This record gives sequence, C-alpha cells and structure tokens, in this order.
Amino acid sequence: MRFDIFTLFPEVFKPYLETSILYRAIQSSLLQVELHNIRDWTTDRHHVTDDAPYGGGGGMVMKAEPVFKAVEAVFGSPPASPVILLTPQGRVLTQEVVKELSSLPRLGLLCGHYEGVDERIREHLVSDEISIGDYVLTGGELPALILVDALTRLIPGALGDPDGAQDDSHASGLLEYPHYTRPAEFRGWRVPEVLLSGNHASITRWRRNQALARTRQRRPDLLKRFLLSTADREFLENLIKESDPLDAEESK
Amino acid sequence: MRFDIFTLFPEVFKPYLETSILYRAIQSSLLQVELHNIRDWTTDRHHVTDDAPYGGGGGMVMKAEPVFKAVEAVFGSPPASPVILLTPQGRVLTQEVVKELSSLPRLGLLCGHYEGVDERIREHLVSDEISIGDYVLTGGELPALILVDALTRLIPGALGDPDGAQDDSHASGLLEYPHYTRPAEFRGWRVPEVLLSGNHASITRWRRNQALARTRQRRPDLLKRFLLSTADREFLENLIKESDPLDAEESK
Repeated sequence: MRFDIFTLFPEVFKPYLETSILYRAIQSSLLQVELHNIRDWTTDRHHVTDDAPYGGGGGMVMKAEPVFKAVEAVFGSPPASPVILLTPQGRVLTQEVVKELSSLPRLGLLCGHYEGVDERIREHLVSDEISIGDYVLTGGELPALILVDALTRLIPGALGDPDGAQDDSHASGLLEYPHYTRPAEFRGWRVPEVLLSGNHASITRWRRNQALARTRQRRPDLLKRFLLSTADREFLENLIKESDPLDAEESK
Repeated sequence: MRFDIFTLFPEVFKPYLETSILYRAIQSSLLQVELHNIRDWTTDRHHVTDDAPYGGGGGMVMKAEPVFKAVEAVFGSPPASPVILLTPQGRVLTQEVVKELSSLPRLGLLCGHYEGVDERIREHLVSDEISIGDYVLTGGELPALILVDALTRLIPGALGDPDGAQDDSHASGLLEYPHYTRPAEFRGWRVPEVLLSGNHASITRWRRNQALARTRQRRPDLLKRFLLSTADREFLENLIKESDPLDAEESK
C-alpha cells in the first residue's frame, strides 16, 4: 500500500515511520510512504501557504492554489487516486472505515492546518474527509499517521504474527480480554488460576467472557452491534442476574 | 501544564513537540513534556520489557515491573498525579474529556505497546484509561501526542489568537462553517458574496447557518446535544422544508 502525504510539516512523520511495525513494513516493501511539502508548490517569494479568512475572524486559512498544485503534481488532474482530507468535519474513523480503505492500493492524505483549508479544496479536490475523533487538534499530521498505522496493520504480512490483529480491541467488535505475563505473582497480585491451568477450552471461554463483561461495562454501545453466540448470551444473562437481580427480573 | 510520558519509543515524540503551537508553548514555559523510556527501568541484562501471555495466544504483553518502576520513580508510590493509560479499552476521548483534563497541572501518560499491558498495571497503577477512537493502533504513542496537542490548545495563552479555539469544530458543539481566503475567484469558483459584503451581521448569521446545516447533514448526533437559539431553530426548520417537504410536514 502506498501513501502520499501532503503536509506543511513533513519532518514530524519520519521518526514514527522508522519505528516498529511501520519500519518493518517499509523495509519489506509492503508499505511506501511519500511525504510532499505543500510549501514546495508556492510560487511567491515568501512561500505563503495561508492567508486571512474572507469575512474576518481569527486564524488563518490554507490557500487553495498550493494544495491543488501539490496534489495534482503527484496524482494528476483530476487526482487518479482517492485523496482524503483529515478534518474534524469528516466522517468518524472506525475499524470498519479502516477495513474499507484497506482495499485501496494508493491513497493521498491531505493534512489541514491553521484554522482550516479553503472550502474549494474540500469541494473540488478531495474525494473523502475523515475525522479521527470529536476533539480539536492543531493539524492533520497526527490523524494522517493514525490512518497509516491502522491501515498498515491490515496489510497481509505486515504484522509478524498472522493472527496478531484478530483479538485486538475493535478488531473483533469487543474490547480485549485481560492480558497477563510473568511473574505469576507480582507484589501479591496473582494471575488468574485458569490462565495457568493449561486447559485451552477453559482459557478460551474465560477470555471470551472477560471480553464480553468488559465491553458490557465500559462500552455497552459496542455490545449492541455485536453478534452474540448462545454461550455469550447465557454468560451475559447470568452476569446481569448476579450484578443486578432487579434488572434481570425486569428484562424478562 | 506538565506531561510525563512513559514509552518504549521516546524518539517519536520530539519532532512533533518541536513544531508549531507545541514548540511555542514549550518555549514560553506554558507546557513542559518529559519523556521517560520504560526500558531504562528494566533490571535484566537484555532490558526485556515484554513477555509471552499466560494462557497462550499470539503477541507479547508489556511486563508489570518496569512500568511500575518507571511511573513510581517519577510520581512516587502510589503516584501523586493522575496517570492515564492510552488504550482502545478506555473511555472515548471527546472535547468534553479534554476540557475536564485541562484543569490538571500535571499528568502522566502511559503508552501501551505490543498486544497490551499486564492487567496488574491497569488495576493497580493507572488512574484513568482513554481511547482516542474505535480503531486498532500499534501503540499509545500517537494517542499520547493527540492528548498533548488537544490539551495544549486549552492552556491560556498557548494559541496566538485568544479567540482562535472557540469556533473550531467540536469546541462550539457544531462543525465549523466553510472558510475561504484569497483569491476571490480560483479556477472559476467564487467565494460566497456575503463574505465580501463587509456586513458583519450577515456574515455572522451566514456562518452560523452554514455550521448548523453542515452539522445536520454530516453529524446529526452532535446536533441533538446542541442548544439551539430561536434563529437557529427557524433556520433548520426552513432547511428541512426546502430539502424534504414531506419530512417537514410529518415533523409538525
């Protein structure tokens, strides 16, 4: 998978791309990331990429022309690959959106900055807009790295362990079960006995139940969308009875 | 505000901290970020920070001991400041959570990596768990930077423009209105006339209406939680009538 990232701050990307899974994916040619500095496509002497907004108000707005020029120099006009603007106004990123995008061989990522980008970029240049969450950030650089990271994990072969991604929170639709590693006792806190039992069926069921219980407690919104097995349903019904006998009565 | 970040990859943070608003906030002593490499608190010869999970399965789990030692060396035992674990299992970050955290003078951020962290870290060391969104990432480093960025924007004086943060998407509860900057015409696409009119009351109303229309179209979930003025309500009612006369009839 290839990413072309259009940004005013290409230097912030490099160290993350040189780390861990992304580094290995680049080394083994599964991942290619090209950084394009929008400032290189300005034509004035001072390399101006932003200007005051029409209609007044605070902040600066990224000018249309250098952004159009940068994207078109790489992708042609109109762009031959999808170009995503990272913006709080976009559709909200979820693991389903990551899966949807993972089928694309090449993707442009446009990082907004300052107050925002000229609306004509939004209307006439980009093909998609994505928000990584409902909070305010300084620019699209971290969101672009988030997308590259999340998408790289879905490239076949990019994770050392082929099953590594399957149990992750949000990959299965449930939050993850608790993990423990050595020592079996740390400061008096012991690892649950079942994990030391060697009984794989028990361990599998315990992990599934823990994932169900945790998702119910922390993110009941996720549980509503999840397809439960018969064993899942029985476990959750017992959990409700134990924790809140009145609730369980009422829901009958 | 001071952040102490506990990570296996301190090198990925520096370039972002040397950029833009964060750099200026650090220069003017409004922001302090200390990076702590968890690996420095291992005691074995190979500086091992992870191990295989009890009960089997893929992936590696971050060991409890080096993480406890790192956090306690900086914050004492029990930690004297809140310590947040960045994890997909945490409560979901929103601008309201950012505001809530912005009152804290000092905050520890613990970046998980590999398959996850030993559950005893979660149960006995951290005081809060935050997820930046429902997708799978390689580690907590990008989420920690997201938190630092979002929180720095709320430090009084950190943004050059004191009103800059108020109109941002999610700061007001609505998505932002469209921005335009020079030229007034670009490739035949003109800036809306009202923005060139100099009539500030009209511009203010136009921007508000655009923000309402865009939020209604893209994120109706946000609009439900937003307190509408009488003028807002009238505008939205007209919008519904124009776009979908049957819907408007039914909603009467």
